Amino acid sequence: MTLFSDKLQVINIGLDSFAESIAQAGGQATNLAWSPPALGDRATGMALAGLVNDADIEAANRRAFNAYLSSQPVLEGIGIAKRELPGMGRRMILHSGPPIEWTRMCGPMRGAITGAILFEGWAEDVDAATRLAASGRVRLEPCHHHGAVGPMAGIISPSMPVWIVRDAQHGHRTFCNLNEGLGKVLRFGANSPEVIGRLKWMATGLRRVLASAFESMEGIDIKPIIAQALQMGDEVHNRNAAATSILMKYLAPAILRSKASRVEATKAVSFITGNDHFFLNISMAACKAMLDAAKGFSGSSMVTAMARNGVDFGIRVSGTGDRWFTAPAPVVDGLYFPGYTIADAAPDLGDSAITETAGLGGFAMAAAPAIVNFVGGTPADAIANTARMGHITLGRNGALTLPAMNFSGTPAGIDIRKVVDTGLAPVINTGIAHRDAGVGQIGAGITHAPLECFAQAVTALAEKMKS
Amino acid sequence: MTLFSDKLQVINIGLDSFAESIAQAGGQATNLAWSPPALGDRATGMALAGLVNDADIEAANRRAFNAYLSSQPVLEGIGIAKRELPGMGRRMILHSGPPIEWTRMCGPMRGAITGAILFEGWAEDVDAATRLAASGRVRLEPCHHHGAVGPMAGIISPSMPVWIVRDAQHGHRTFCNLNEGLGKVLRFGANSPEVIGRLKWMATGLRRVLASAFESMEGIDIKPIIAQALQMGDEVHNRNAAATSILMKYLAPAILRSKASRVEATKAVSFITGNDHFFLNISMAACKAMLDAAKGFSGSSMVTAMARNGVDFGIRVSGTGDRWFTAPAPVVDGLYFPGYTIADAAPDLGDSAITETAGLGGFAMAAAPAIVNFVGGTPADAIANTARMGHITLGRNGALTLPAMNFSGTPAGIDIRKVVDTGLAPVINTGIAHRDAGVGQIGAGITHAPLECFAQAVTALAEKMKS
Repeated sequence: MTLFSDKLQVINIGLDSFAESIAQAGGQATNLAWSPPALGDRATGMALAGLVNDADIEAANRRAFNAYLSSQPVLEGIGIAKRELPGMGRRMILHSGPPIEWTRMCGPMRGAITGAILFEGWAEDVDAATRLAASGRVRLEPCHHHGAVGPMAGIISPSMPVWIVRDAQHGHRTFCNLNEGLGKVLRFGANSPEVIGRLKWMATGLRRVLASAFESMEGIDIKPIIAQALQMGDEVHNRNAAATSILMKYLAPAILRSKASRVEATKAVSFITGNDHFFLNISMAACKAMLDAAKGFSGSSMVTAMARNGVDFGIRVSGTGDRWFTAPAPVVDGLYFPGYTIADAAPDLGDSAITETAGLGGFAMAAAPAIVNFVGGTPADAIANTARMGHITLGRNGALTLPAMNFSGTPAGIDIRKVVDTGLAPVINTGIAHRDAGVGQIGAGITHAPLECFAQAVTALAEKMKS
Repeated sequence: MTLFSDKLQVINIGLDSFAESIAQAGGQATNLAWSPPALGDRATGMALAGLVNDADIEAANRRAFNAYLSSQPVLEGIGIAKRELPGMGRRMILHSGPPIEWTRMCGPMRGAITGAILFEGWAEDVDAATRLAASGRVRLEPCHHHGAVGPMAGIISPSMPVWIVRDAQHGHRTFCNLNEGLGKVLRFGANSPEVIGRLKWMATGLRRVLASAFESMEGIDIKPIIAQALQMGDEVHNRNAAATSILMKYLAPAILRSKASRVEATKAVSFITGNDHFFLNISMAACKAMLDAAKGFSGSSMVTAMARNGVDFGIRVSGTGDRWFTAPAPVVDGLYFPGYTIADAAPDLGDSAITETAGLGGFAMAAAPAIVNFVGGTPADAIANTARMGHITLGRNGALTLPAMNFSGTPAGIDIRKVVDTGLAPVINTGIAHRDAGVGQIGAGITHAPLECFAQAVTALAEKMKS
């Protein structure tokens, strides 16, 4: 009977209502937020149970995570997609996210593919380009299937220039297109003559200047630039102001030393210094390089890619190879530019979530307090987001430290088991595209990867482990 | 008698021992750290008492602080000291800090003056230059007496190039020499042929390139660059990595557009991009411009300059005009480079504390968590330092915000009354010079302005208010 004579110390787990009853009866209870694993889905929960405390999985994850940690992405230079990308066809256009057919694509992606067809000269005008895209006579495949990534619509067509990143530790190469700046740009679906004209200059004048500049360099180590940028308020997804400036410290002298003409060099330098997002595409290729190092470790539950095509959100996992696990892409409840609301937004779009997959972007928000002016929230929220991601990751990346968290490494190596167990979804900082082609960016915000992708992946990995 | 029957709630102010007695008797006491104003000095305390709750002083401080806030420093270009600095004589060398004669100067300042004499060609070798300096036939005056500032030894000789900053709001101009980079440099007292050779190139090649670049620019607004840099981990005193990069976004295209030769332009751009401290001297001139706006308001207790010559630390106050209040410069207990200790250090040196006077540097440490790797402490200490400075300043500068403190403005406008009342000394982030000329920087750390300067200033202002 001492239970009822002593003062009760109650901790309630789960439903709030039990704690409320105690409070109503005059007692005190501490309520612990908790929900059952796998959102209470029995089949997924059983699959998850089969994957925990498994020495093979732990060992595979250690190997995959160490491969990610040891990756040394080096920016080797610039090339042309059709010459560099593995499996790039002559009549092929690459897009962001998991595979998707033309009829299901969102507005910005259609607009961007139409623009790429005009850029390639495969059609005379927008109508003809749209008909060609719909005809199936241009192959449409994900960037990720060709070692590449691209922000927003993520379009890479055969003649476009691409950054070439090589993992000096493991030898593989990754690619990304070049950042066009803000405003009317192909990646948001714009395809006006101004947009196509800029792309043509990027493929000729800008590419020549950069190619010439790289002739006097051994390549640029990207991880130290990212590490410095994290000390300077970037999370290298939605904020790349510092990283772009650091990159310029390498590029400006190299461009001056190059054989590019003064006029071409001036135009290139002005273009790059005028765009604080210029480094984003290099960051993305570097993140893909780090994660490709972690690909294909049998049994590993580490996520190697998260990507969105504006309709589907997809993830890939080390232990399940190239298979995509998809769910509907969320619409982002962020900060909208004046005149726009969530009703105008295309669902989450772009390969740029590769940065979060590598422990940057939303995972490294603690490094970028000023980003909250762009994506919403307070600096304390930014730190809390990073702290939360520590619960669903395999470890911390000691090469990429966060000053505001006492220089601890950024949380990295998303473990599908931890996501499904905790119900904590990976956080993503993202730009928001208008649902119609060509309007452009209409806001930015924080979104989360759909838990459904991770539940599917857990089920698939469990089946694979049994076989 | 209820006092002894009730449970006691004790707050003790001042000496800990009273609280300890209560604790020993089984009671509880909260001890409030407190010390008497003016460190208990009766005369200073009486002078301070005469300055508080004075409507004239409050009004003068509002005007001085608003003048500081409204200052708009614009980098107008580059010039030659003898042509630009008011009162600059042909046989004159300017140094940092308050006035000091040759015989009392510290090693690095003597070495730097000797170097400046060699640079000017007034002597053939170091011995002859030293004799000339000691002879009194070269006038030695503070930079601050000629509208200028200089880091460390702060040497400006007639033929040296200087940055020209103009306060677009109030019209006055300020100046600073150009940053030479790290290693063997004049500002740490080095005067080898390599050092003099670099200075000669800076006065010719580099100056010509920059002058030519400024021909295509209207001038560069400095406050927005500082504001951005604060969002990017700089406090623009000991950390200028972001600010230098942002400056480069203006300079690189302008240099390319200029009539400078390709070889000269490449050398200039490589020099600037190779030195993360390059912006420091511009930051200093801009801070002096903001503070010169606050000079000479009768009755104002706002500090308008803090500067050190390696022997004396001096401050100037708006309401007491150009008078210096000095005390021995402290030795900095910081992080020393391998092989060096505090025994090797010259006392605090340089005009760069003008940044703290303007609410930057140590006052804005919260913006620069990564600086603790350089000056010691933790990111939490950095935030605490900024918070503490809020107790001795007239207000906050809303144009210069600190992300880690929820975007509050940096504390600025040091009030000598508040310093003397609280005993809180202004915090300064600083580099540490070796006591011998030419060894260079041997560390960095956090130091504090001597309270004695502020006590003198309070006494002087009180006398002035009476007369």
